[in-house]
Amino acid sequence: MAVNLSAPEPASLRPVAGVELGWAEAGIRKLGRKDLLLLRLVPGAAVAGVFTQNRSCAAPVLVCREHLAAASAVRALVVNTGCANAGTGEPGLADARQTCAAVGKLLGCEATAVLPFSTGVIMEPLPVARLIAGLPQAAARFAIDHWPQAAEAIMTTDTVPKAASRRFALDGVPTAVTGIAKGAGMIKPNMATMLGFVATDAAVAPALLQRLVAQVAEVSFNRITVDGDTSTNDSFVLIATGGNGAAPIANEADARYPLLADEVAAVAQQLAQAIVRDGEGATKFIEIAVEGAASEAEAKQVAYAVAQSPLVKTAFFASDPNLGRILAAVGNAGIADLDAARVQLHLNDVWAARNGGRHPDYREEDGQRVMCGAEIVVRIALGRGTASATVWTCDLSHGYVSINADYRS
Amino acid sequence: MAVNLSAPEPASLRPVAGVELGWAEAGIRKLGRKDLLLLRLVPGAAVAGVFTQNRSCAAPVLVCREHLAAASAVRALVVNTGCANAGTGEPGLADARQTCAAVGKLLGCEATAVLPFSTGVIMEPLPVARLIAGLPQAAARFAIDHWPQAAEAIMTTDTVPKAASRRFALDGVPTAVTGIAKGAGMIKPNMATMLGFVATDAAVAPALLQRLVAQVAEVSFNRITVDGDTSTNDSFVLIATGGNGAAPIANEADARYPLLADEVAAVAQQLAQAIVRDGEGATKFIEIAVEGAASEAEAKQVAYAVAQSPLVKTAFFASDPNLGRILAAVGNAGIADLDAARVQLHLNDVWAARNGGRHPDYREEDGQRVMCGAEIVVRIALGRGTASATVWTCDLSHGYVSINADYRS
Repeated sequence: MAVNLSAPEPASLRPVAGVELGWAEAGIRKLGRKDLLLLRLVPGAAVAGVFTQNRSCAAPVLVCREHLAAASAVRALVVNTGCANAGTGEPGLADARQTCAAVGKLLGCEATAVLPFSTGVIMEPLPVARLIAGLPQAAARFAIDHWPQAAEAIMTTDTVPKAASRRFALDGVPTAVTGIAKGAGMIKPNMATMLGFVATDAAVAPALLQRLVAQVAEVSFNRITVDGDTSTNDSFVLIATGGNGAAPIANEADARYPLLADEVAAVAQQLAQAIVRDGEGATKFIEIAVEGAASEAEAKQVAYAVAQSPLVKTAFFASDPNLGRILAAVGNAGIADLDAARVQLHLNDVWAARNGGRHPDYREEDGQRVMCGAEIVVRIALGRGTASATVWTCDLSHGYVSINADYRS
Repeated sequence: MAVNLSAPEPASLRPVAGVELGWAEAGIRKLGRKDLLLLRLVPGAAVAGVFTQNRSCAAPVLVCREHLAAASAVRALVVNTGCANAGTGEPGLADARQTCAAVGKLLGCEATAVLPFSTGVIMEPLPVARLIAGLPQAAARFAIDHWPQAAEAIMTTDTVPKAASRRFALDGVPTAVTGIAKGAGMIKPNMATMLGFVATDAAVAPALLQRLVAQVAEVSFNRITVDGDTSTNDSFVLIATGGNGAAPIANEADARYPLLADEVAAVAQQLAQAIVRDGEGATKFIEIAVEGAASEAEAKQVAYAVAQSPLVKTAFFASDPNLGRILAAVGNAGIADLDAARVQLHLNDVWAARNGGRHPDYREEDGQRVMCGAEIVVRIALGRGTASATVWTCDLSHGYVSINADYRS
């Protein structure tokens, strides 16, 4: 039921020299499904990440932050589905550390050179013995062209695997950016998304890579919402292997930096939008573009207020141009001095509200025509300044309720 | 489908001397239903109100604020359903003023002595001619014992009329507090609810009445949420007629003030909880009690974060003790220095999470038993201080999606 989203062509996902991927069916929660992913990185690869701002963050997030702060090198990533290892207290932390130690032993590196990631049900203990037992099977499958299987191995309620890839010349050197991500509920990333991994074979200095991952998150994963619930496990990791053989990019003044940043952002945006297209129960893909704001933060705040309103989202599900709900959500965004009489509202090409009220020329059938589409652009002008921001979201359907009423069964 | 809520016994709703109520079937949106309510107040009645903080507030809200600020006396309230007169710009304001003028002409008072209220679909023009044509019918029905019919006349998607009443002695003088309210969606009041009217025959000085209405709103209508969407039309009005014959209460030092305030708050809380019990699609009534907070504002913030999480609400609908979602919502509440390892979670009598993780003695069947009930108390201790706050909410069901996907049809 994903909106205009199908599984990526395996051949379209370019290998990234220096990144090997292997998976296993470890039976973490259910038997017979890929639920464990192992990534091995070439020595010298730079790794940076951003993580959930949820204060109840998962044990693996705490361990990732610790290892990224302490380690001089990251050599492996280990990802499991079926259990989030969140709300698990001290035992959960011990489980995450034990996982890293087992990966380190298997691959011949320090435990602190391993980053752990988990996704699934919260407040249940991690079946760490089954996870560790599956590691050799995953390592046995290491190959650089296993991105399609890796995208499958991190799915939970996703109906479509999510991967994106670009190939381009960076100062004449052929370079790749390839990534995978998962949704599909508890999606309102704050600094990162519910597991996104993007790798490039360009070489980037670690400090610059950390700036890049934050910049890219801000225009991709931090611009989507399915249900407004920020996950306990959000993690977005960017890997730069140096496998393209070119000299490292050391700072933003390097002419290659903006080119690489654009390519990484394009991959991340494609992944972020794929999460929304495959949002739990989604039947429509909606872009909320707010302009004329006093600041970008304000524009984003208004866009999220609209994108997260259950009444707006159910109206989209019904293809009902009940557009007053959008104006109500704008008024609800917490902009204390907003003048509602300056607000303009467009749906695709239809000017629905002028100066805070129904446009005199607006006809219900025009709104209806737009609402019947599977892709809708809502454009809101606030009349306060020149800043803008865009957020992507989906509708709220019976499917969302069914999926989340049944998630653990 | 309301949760443990039935229509009030007509005899239980005490008349308030000085308040007459009449209704009409004006055909505002649909034929053959009560959709217009008129209240006539005795000269000298004090009236105070609090209104939505939504910046896209409705035309009648603007006019109410204007008339309350300007008028020396309020003599009448006029309420229509079927159209919110919000998102209607200047023409909407003119319609609200014209309504007040028509009521004033009919009842022999200034237009500024009339307060208008509307509820229904947003961004559609008010059928002001039909409304005005219905006024004489409503006035012909003026009686002090028409509170039950008044509660019916303001219903929209409500399935049960909402009214509450108390009778008590105030310094020996028999006194009544009676009120009505409506829900049932776009409910996350901010200063007031989607139409609540409470009257007492005690006499209260206007300035004190304004303080009282704000105090009462804070512990009643400002403590509920159905879907987190603050309405454009929220209005909570408190009327004090002086019809009990006693001397006016002029300030908070009067010993009668706290007694009256408690009675008014009890009526308002009963109405507020009725709105949740009859929330769109509600199958469960849930109390979220947060304690151990650093401030009351913080406690309320955490309670609302839990009460508004779609994932928490769908888990309640499914009677699924997926309690990690509650911990995730707590972590999501925006308390930057929250220590998740100090959070305790109880469901009714079941201690589910201790120090941020699953309690070692917690058994799924105990959580299941609580979740299967229609009334659930979620108690969250933050371990940060001594402040507390309670919020009432309902679950998120297929019914909510159906109602809001069909609302205009």
